[in-house]
Amino acid sequence: MNPLKLEVCFSPIQFPLFQTDDKIVVVVDILRATTVITTMFINGVNKVIPVKTIEEAKELKKTGLLVVAERDGQKLDFADFGNSPFYFTKEVVENKTLVYSTTNGTNALTLGLNSNKVIVGSFLNISSIVEYLNKSLTDVIILCAGWKDRFSLEDCLFAGALTKKLLEAGCFYTKCDSANASVDLWEKAQENLDAYLEKVAQKHRLQKLGLHNVIPYCFEHDKTNLIPYLCLEKDKLKENLPYLIV
Amino acid sequence: MNPLKLEVCFSPIQFPLFQTDDKIVVVVDILRATTVITTMFINGVNKVIPVKTIEEAKELKKTGLLVVAERDGQKLDFADFGNSPFYFTKEVVENKTLVYSTTNGTNALTLGLNSNKVIVGSFLNISSIVEYLNKSLTDVIILCAGWKDRFSLEDCLFAGALTKKLLEAGCFYTKCDSANASVDLWEKAQENLDAYLEKVAQKHRLQKLGLHNVIPYCFEHDKTNLIPYLCLEKDKLKENLPYLIV
Repeated sequence: MNPLKLEVCFSPIQFPLFQTDDKIVVVVDILRATTVITTMFINGVNKVIPVKTIEEAKELKKTGLLVVAERDGQKLDFADFGNSPFYFTKEVVENKTLVYSTTNGTNALTLGLNSNKVIVGSFLNISSIVEYLNKSLTDVIILCAGWKDRFSLEDCLFAGALTKKLLEAGCFYTKCDSANASVDLWEKAQENLDAYLEKVAQKHRLQKLGLHNVIPYCFEHDKTNLIPYLCLEKDKLKENLPYLIV
Repeated sequence: MNPLKLEVCFSPIQFPLFQTDDKIVVVVDILRATTVITTMFINGVNKVIPVKTIEEAKELKKTGLLVVAERDGQKLDFADFGNSPFYFTKEVVENKTLVYSTTNGTNALTLGLNSNKVIVGSFLNISSIVEYLNKSLTDVIILCAGWKDRFSLEDCLFAGALTKKLLEAGCFYTKCDSANASVDLWEKAQENLDAYLEKVAQKHRLQKLGLHNVIPYCFEHDKTNLIPYLCLEKDKLKENLPYLIV
């Protein structure tokens, strides 16, 4: 069997440049969307509906669902929650359906709808993702959510960590410059992660808003073996509305 | 005086996301457009007209100009030259005007037309660029031509080398994740550049075409102090056609 192809896409704006129909797309927004979503599933959420626009989030709130909505790091007025993983305890989310709309992550999550499968990647579930992808026999593209379509270092670091593990396991190869760059940056960052994160613009954005206490948690490895993935079955709320389950 | 802002854009498709009106744009396509253009000026070319489409190049050839045209690494049939820096000796280019159209570089060159100034960056003129930018009192964005709007490692390495020199000189600051990543990758690559270039997809594309003998030259530093830049004065060939001069 030939090894499987692995690519990294640094920005949602570049995603249409990749051929993705038959690939598994791993979406990553380390600070904070995919870390938050993974946390929700750790704490027993039933379903998460990612929506791109504020209008969609508002419309769904009218149906009685809890809404998480954030732009530029800050909770929007009409929302029930902002975007910290610490809000979504078992008491808050267990067996619930949440609507979720953030600056970067929710757009990235729905871009891969025509691919083989979209899964949610974070350090919290990285080893489970490696195990899953090694068994998948399917090419993979890691899609970094970035910051407003620009490159984000923290998503690249996750892409590097995941790429490194996948290459070491031997089922995948890469000829992708973004993947090779990601591995090198992850190796460099690992020498002293706390110091390295000073280079990350999103760390400083969160710090300005007093929200940087979430950062160490967002880099914790393997707190769960759950892998949220995107579904496009008909939903009782709205036809063909994609949602995340585990 | 406040230090000047420095950013790196990894792909032409992301360039519209940056505010660039009052900035100097350093365009880089190390393998090979900006290295080739710099070489043409070293050898005394009078003017280089970068054109995006094959149709424009064909039209300009009818006026009697020499045309360089390449797609996916290979010379196009109607063109006078392919895209190797070794073609453009003094005997060939001195005092001439050349039309130039390549896969990635020529698109990137004209994207910054509304900025303060567009200059051509390569390792061949890197120290002169540093000196020029340190005197400019103007914010800078380094635009990597990439590969068909994807990230290219070799352009990122140049962005890292230039960013590192500019930060060390003290006139510039950066809060740009792409700039910080570029510096780290350049430092890593410098440990053993030849070995590092094995990770570069464009090296392998050129190798397949038997064109990789240009690569060592494309990483030679400081062969000239010339800095080609983009002009948009009226040209006798066509109104408002931008061209490069030194």
